[in-house]
Amino acid sequence: MLNFDLHIPTKIIFGRKAQEQIGKALKPYAGKVLLHYGGGSIKKSGLYSEITAALRGSGIAFAELGGVVPNPRLGLVQKGIELCRKEQVELVLAVGGGSVIDSAKAIAMGFYYEGNIWDVYETGQAITAALPVAAVLTIPAAGSESSPNTVITNEEKAIKRGFGSQLLRPVLSVVNPELFFTLPQEQLANGAADMMSHIFERYFTNTTHTDLTDSLCEATLKTIMKNALLVKADRQDYDAWSEIGLGATFAHNNILGVGREQDWACHGMEHELSAIYDVAHGAGLAVLTPNWMEYVYKDNIAIFTQFAVKVMGVEGGYRPAEAPILAAIAKLRKFYRELGLPSTLKELGIDESKLELMAQKATGAAYGAERPLGNFKKLLWQDVLAIYKRSA
Amino acid sequence: MLNFDLHIPTKIIFGRKAQEQIGKALKPYAGKVLLHYGGGSIKKSGLYSEITAALRGSGIAFAELGGVVPNPRLGLVQKGIELCRKEQVELVLAVGGGSVIDSAKAIAMGFYYEGNIWDVYETGQAITAALPVAAVLTIPAAGSESSPNTVITNEEKAIKRGFGSQLLRPVLSVVNPELFFTLPQEQLANGAADMMSHIFERYFTNTTHTDLTDSLCEATLKTIMKNALLVKADRQDYDAWSEIGLGATFAHNNILGVGREQDWACHGMEHELSAIYDVAHGAGLAVLTPNWMEYVYKDNIAIFTQFAVKVMGVEGGYRPAEAPILAAIAKLRKFYRELGLPSTLKELGIDESKLELMAQKATGAAYGAERPLGNFKKLLWQDVLAIYKRSA
Repeated sequence: MLNFDLHIPTKIIFGRKAQEQIGKALKPYAGKVLLHYGGGSIKKSGLYSEITAALRGSGIAFAELGGVVPNPRLGLVQKGIELCRKEQVELVLAVGGGSVIDSAKAIAMGFYYEGNIWDVYETGQAITAALPVAAVLTIPAAGSESSPNTVITNEEKAIKRGFGSQLLRPVLSVVNPELFFTLPQEQLANGAADMMSHIFERYFTNTTHTDLTDSLCEATLKTIMKNALLVKADRQDYDAWSEIGLGATFAHNNILGVGREQDWACHGMEHELSAIYDVAHGAGLAVLTPNWMEYVYKDNIAIFTQFAVKVMGVEGGYRPAEAPILAAIAKLRKFYRELGLPSTLKELGIDESKLELMAQKATGAAYGAERPLGNFKKLLWQDVLAIYKRSA
Repeated sequence: MLNFDLHIPTKIIFGRKAQEQIGKALKPYAGKVLLHYGGGSIKKSGLYSEITAALRGSGIAFAELGGVVPNPRLGLVQKGIELCRKEQVELVLAVGGGSVIDSAKAIAMGFYYEGNIWDVYETGQAITAALPVAAVLTIPAAGSESSPNTVITNEEKAIKRGFGSQLLRPVLSVVNPELFFTLPQEQLANGAADMMSHIFERYFTNTTHTDLTDSLCEATLKTIMKNALLVKADRQDYDAWSEIGLGATFAHNNILGVGREQDWACHGMEHELSAIYDVAHGAGLAVLTPNWMEYVYKDNIAIFTQFAVKVMGVEGGYRPAEAPILAAIAKLRKFYRELGLPSTLKELGIDESKLELMAQKATGAAYGAERPLGNFKKLLWQDVLAIYKRSA
């Protein structure tokens, strides 16, 4: 086990009607907030009215900025920063899924940052201040509701980049599984693929002696897979959505990842797809992940055998060594398909014309600064290209 | 799944040499601290010198108070409160195991409390302020390093009582498994029994649809059991101690307990043993737990069957229903014995003369205010007596 720090200051308020507590809960942090949201589904659902009523009821003033899209854009972030400064807000309240929360985090740190906040995503330089962020979650997927991470797309440059800072962990997040009842199958599927990937990125490691986090990862993966199928069968299954909502949060707040080297190659490769083709992050991950697994498993047969047996429930002999592993990857593909996720880049509308460009962007080779992607197996751009080609 | 709030603001600094960071890490919180510890083993081990050097190195002044004993006493707490007021300290730094941290928490809230801090333990009344607490953990067991709980013994009244408040979660805890190398087998065993009980108190529930936390509990229990035996075989096994150290923290910071009704009858029954006979908490739990299980399992065969199969690895048929459950309890007893833990109250030096008194104290019947103990099965004093008698 490696040395680590773990600090999750986010307060999670979880359960039925939890959003009604948002006014009272935010009162200690702010007298005025930016209410940040997406395409307006929260107005149709009535959630907007509930939130604004709760804010007014607690005497919290608010400015508002809607319009966040999946793969959230830098342009709107910059608009949000200006608005927050002009309105002198004290907290950014995201009402939405991961895209809205990630956009809120970018605005929160941009508020104090002199210059273009994109610098931070490009250089990874540490930030020293950010407005507090809070969230009312409407899509369980990204785990942004208690993670320190944000991913933003620079639409002019067609680059999608992530950034993380403890200052960006939300102070407060409301998770009410009832709010998930109206999500379409596609968002359930994309969300499940994303949260599973957050666990895979931690699980597949060359660090040894990680019994506890191994088994916590396995438990969370199995819970998400089981309950995603339950929700597919009954979109109003509160209990199944609860498992997914809690699973999504635990998948990415890093309790599952402490003390182990993490990988993050699949996320890196997927960001290049989304940046150019604007595909759903979870769908991109579902395509890439099994192909990444097939490309890398020989580097550590032991952890992949453990995955096959403990997560995917592969039975039968372990000889030859690749047999249970390939069976497990096949089962994973089948699971993704069962949720309605794509298996190929082609299904995502991605042809082979830009695979090489994306591979070179993913490793930095396109910018003359290549560094290998991932830690489980260090991928050069030729490796990434090979994985993209397998995925075509 | 039940509604819940989860908020764990404690920062964990985990790993080799982690205690060297204590000065720098505490600097934002305090210019002067109370250094609180136990019987002086930290002076022999050199930890005291390391900690005081780190404090001095960061310009943090300190007063000090040693002498905390297992089942920490109210008398020393009151001394600590006076000292903190006189010295105007800003934080209480516990260097030790759960007893020292629990004592530190009592001092931290007593600092602001007008009147006798025992009131709070007796009435459970909410507190409104406490000094921040930090910890350098030397015994993995109680989980107090990131829990909101404290248990104190009023030695004059021979009563042991627990109290919890979010204000008592340490702001910072250092967990370095190297510090556990010198612990005797008895403390490993007592610690394992305590952390396992923290999970059992959460695991055995009548709440349904708790897939994720069920499986996280199971994963953590199995990890602790496996690694306790590894440490028994090699007291300097850093990796095995790491699993136990992380397991102890996760066992009681409530990530395993959210959304489910918890029980806490075994802890309640054990506190009566410790209060009168001053036995080790973990040893008392090891005696009582299997007897509690045998007394209550019929109330929820399903969760006990799950325990038998998923945690204790009982194989074979599930008919009759009690067969796997009784086999699992037998395996648990065997595991405790393998660690060197007692099976009977007699081995703890407890005869049958005060069983009735303790049963009446545990439920409050002794004070004319009986309320059932535990939630899995509501125990009246006659039930508690029956469990004590089974344990004799």
